[in-house]
Amino acid sequence: MNYSIVLYILGCVLKFESAFLILPALVGLIYREHASVSYLAVAVLCLILGVLLTHKKPRSTNLYTREGFVAVALSWIIMSIFGAIPFVLTGDIPFYVDALFETISGFTTTGSSILTDVESISKASLFWRSFSHWIGGMGVFVFIMAILPMMGGSTMNLMKAESPGPSVSKLVPHVKDTAKILYGIYIAITICEATILRALGMPLFDSLTTTFGTVGTGGFGIRNDSIAGYSPAIQITITVFMILSGINYTAYFYILTGKIKELFKIEEVRWYLAIIFGSVAVITWNVRSLYPTFSETLRHAFFQVGSIITTTGYATTDFDLWPALSKTLLVTLMFIGACAGSTSGGIKVSRILILLKTIRKELSLIIHPRQVKKIRMDGHPVDHETLRSANVFLVVYFVLLLTSMLLISVDEFDFSTNFTSVVTVLNNIGPGLNLVGPTQNFSIFSPFSKFVLMFDMLAGRLELFPMMILLMPSTWKRK
Amino acid sequence: MNYSIVLYILGCVLKFESAFLILPALVGLIYREHASVSYLAVAVLCLILGVLLTHKKPRSTNLYTREGFVAVALSWIIMSIFGAIPFVLTGDIPFYVDALFETISGFTTTGSSILTDVESISKASLFWRSFSHWIGGMGVFVFIMAILPMMGGSTMNLMKAESPGPSVSKLVPHVKDTAKILYGIYIAITICEATILRALGMPLFDSLTTTFGTVGTGGFGIRNDSIAGYSPAIQITITVFMILSGINYTAYFYILTGKIKELFKIEEVRWYLAIIFGSVAVITWNVRSLYPTFSETLRHAFFQVGSIITTTGYATTDFDLWPALSKTLLVTLMFIGACAGSTSGGIKVSRILILLKTIRKELSLIIHPRQVKKIRMDGHPVDHETLRSANVFLVVYFVLLLTSMLLISVDEFDFSTNFTSVVTVLNNIGPGLNLVGPTQNFSIFSPFSKFVLMFDMLAGRLELFPMMILLMPSTWKRK
Repeated sequence: MNYSIVLYILGCVLKFESAFLILPALVGLIYREHASVSYLAVAVLCLILGVLLTHKKPRSTNLYTREGFVAVALSWIIMSIFGAIPFVLTGDIPFYVDALFETISGFTTTGSSILTDVESISKASLFWRSFSHWIGGMGVFVFIMAILPMMGGSTMNLMKAESPGPSVSKLVPHVKDTAKILYGIYIAITICEATILRALGMPLFDSLTTTFGTVGTGGFGIRNDSIAGYSPAIQITITVFMILSGINYTAYFYILTGKIKELFKIEEVRWYLAIIFGSVAVITWNVRSLYPTFSETLRHAFFQVGSIITTTGYATTDFDLWPALSKTLLVTLMFIGACAGSTSGGIKVSRILILLKTIRKELSLIIHPRQVKKIRMDGHPVDHETLRSANVFLVVYFVLLLTSMLLISVDEFDFSTNFTSVVTVLNNIGPGLNLVGPTQNFSIFSPFSKFVLMFDMLAGRLELFPMMILLMPSTWKRK
Repeated sequence: MNYSIVLYILGCVLKFESAFLILPALVGLIYREHASVSYLAVAVLCLILGVLLTHKKPRSTNLYTREGFVAVALSWIIMSIFGAIPFVLTGDIPFYVDALFETISGFTTTGSSILTDVESISKASLFWRSFSHWIGGMGVFVFIMAILPMMGGSTMNLMKAESPGPSVSKLVPHVKDTAKILYGIYIAITICEATILRALGMPLFDSLTTTFGTVGTGGFGIRNDSIAGYSPAIQITITVFMILSGINYTAYFYILTGKIKELFKIEEVRWYLAIIFGSVAVITWNVRSLYPTFSETLRHAFFQVGSIITTTGYATTDFDLWPALSKTLLVTLMFIGACAGSTSGGIKVSRILILLKTIRKELSLIIHPRQVKKIRMDGHPVDHETLRSANVFLVVYFVLLLTSMLLISVDEFDFSTNFTSVVTVLNNIGPGLNLVGPTQNFSIFSPFSKFVLMFDMLAGRLELFPMMILLMPSTWKRK
């Protein structure tokens, strides 16, 4: 393990976090809140630590997979550890474990909250919560790579550890340029949504924070009733942008570069949209008696389906009161998630497609044993490496799910609370069912369970392996 | 598809079922029940059909994997279709769908019942229910192969489709001899248990039926309170035999042939016992306040853990009233199951071990990318084929679990009922939690959901693929 480069990277991340923390400080200043000082203080602290850690250039800049994975996992942990401090200093979240839970939930774009009354905390903290979704959504390393000329060569290993999906597609030959394009699209979508929401009469503060939560597919609301209190037009706008944010960013790149033919070849996006429309149809039919008009039913169905499949987690209605079929369908969507290469969590549609195609191939092999058939995606054969990693992903996912459920069951809550808690954090969604339903929160859990759920949030956001590798003793050996 | 050989095999199976049905007819005769006639009538029906189907020898006796899988899946379905008729004729289960559910639950050694009052049905039917566990436990094809000189060559494909575990281990070079040894051990264990239970004061009828349910890891009780009403000595005996029945039969073969050194090499058995003792320790501690003495607590913990991990499903206490930690632990054990090559269901300990070793290998590869490391079981490297099939198994398992949950949620029961219903039938256990807890039954479900659960029971018993292949259109093409 090359510790010097890992420490250097952690320093870089802290310097960036310091810059990010200036924004909530400014928000606090505008609203004349004391909270502003706390954010500024932590920004300075991060800057000092960052400068100290990056003072000495690392001897070797070789970044192997191991170092890449460890650096990314530790960076997300460090970012959360420092990002949580202002919540305590401002008094908005008095207990540090809760503050850490909230911060990790923010950065990982989960959106599960321990706050019982969101509206009582400072504007600065509300802004920081939502802004953490925006930072975590596209990823802090993608941001760093878009700006800094990173140390030579294998920065791909950082990208590999941080970006979601079964394989990383470089849009253009250079990682740096890919990162720039991705953030460019990300910022463009952000500006679009915020502008439209503002035009529809949403206050500026609300439109910004809501947009951060949408495009980062996070889900922290700034009101106790999440999005339910806003006008239908605003809800529909958010629905559209949630669904857009769950689409593979490669699709936008194709649109920008005029490769419309390539666009229609993306199987994942087709299936993603098909699953959304199918689920909306079933749910609209299933909950038809709960709402006065068809259009309202449809609006709620679209919003909740879009919110869950993209793993955002906003709500316009309490879906825990929906009938079992709709609730089970939503839980199924929690597992699926949206597209790879988007800001969403979950297993991802493309990985599901690969796995389903593996089943089909395996069954075909029983029928025609001598058949040689390759699994294809978007017309191209999928390489062995991607197949194997999709399989192993599911195994790790399953093991982590069961283990976490077992660990948090010591808190003695009911089965569906435990199950959906783990499912919702592991897939970075936000709300679950029952005691962690859309109108409830995660404050009920013991600190031990909160730590288990924090691990799951980070594991979910970083696609399991970077976090799992921290648990392997051999990771920490010098060689 | 070679239809002629499939039909011929179905005919053989029906002839054997006819012979099996004589036993409940005799039981009915002894107890002077009218039911006897119904069983005799169906036995005659099966014999006639069997003779008709086997009248003409198939033109080609080539049995490829496809034909093997289809023949086994269809045989289990046909066996259940005819095995269910006596329940309706005797009036013990008036509705055919319910009778079919009960029969499939019997043959697949699941033990989930739709009966609300077991004690009210005829002795002949009680015997047939339990005896179906015994037939299904070791498998009807293993039985047929042990007796009949089956058509030349590739009978291994029948064995492969029916016997549980990631790979079929032939104990001796010939399939026929392997089948004989397996049934020999099976019968020996059966005689042992029945004799001990009888010696402990259990009535003969009870000791026979309970033994069938234990060694077949089925779980149909003949009393409404399952095993709770019997003496502690009887409960302890059943616990021991349940655990013994979950052990890989290869272990007994090693003992019989004096290969004690080989015996201790079986990793699966070691882990299986470790999981049992570990779970008992946790549960004993967790439920200590529910029972008056430590020995009673320990007895209930051992019984329930043994019953669930071996996928038997008997109960001595209502574990649905246990605290969440114990319940979640039992649900985890439901997934695990006992050893491959035993009569139990579930994912199987050896498959879990292979999957966990795959995770460890994958994580090692991130740390040392150029490392070449083989996954080993019992000291031998595991071949690629077994690894891949264990992976694909988990994918199919996961997809089937979610799909079934979604389908049965139309009945609008709560989440934990739906979830544990599917888990318990897919793993051939019997009871679940909540509305399908140990003191409840499956009569609540709609016929549609019952069919979904029947499919899952068969899929679980036949290790997914033989049932899945029935759903592939290309299976049914001539070529």
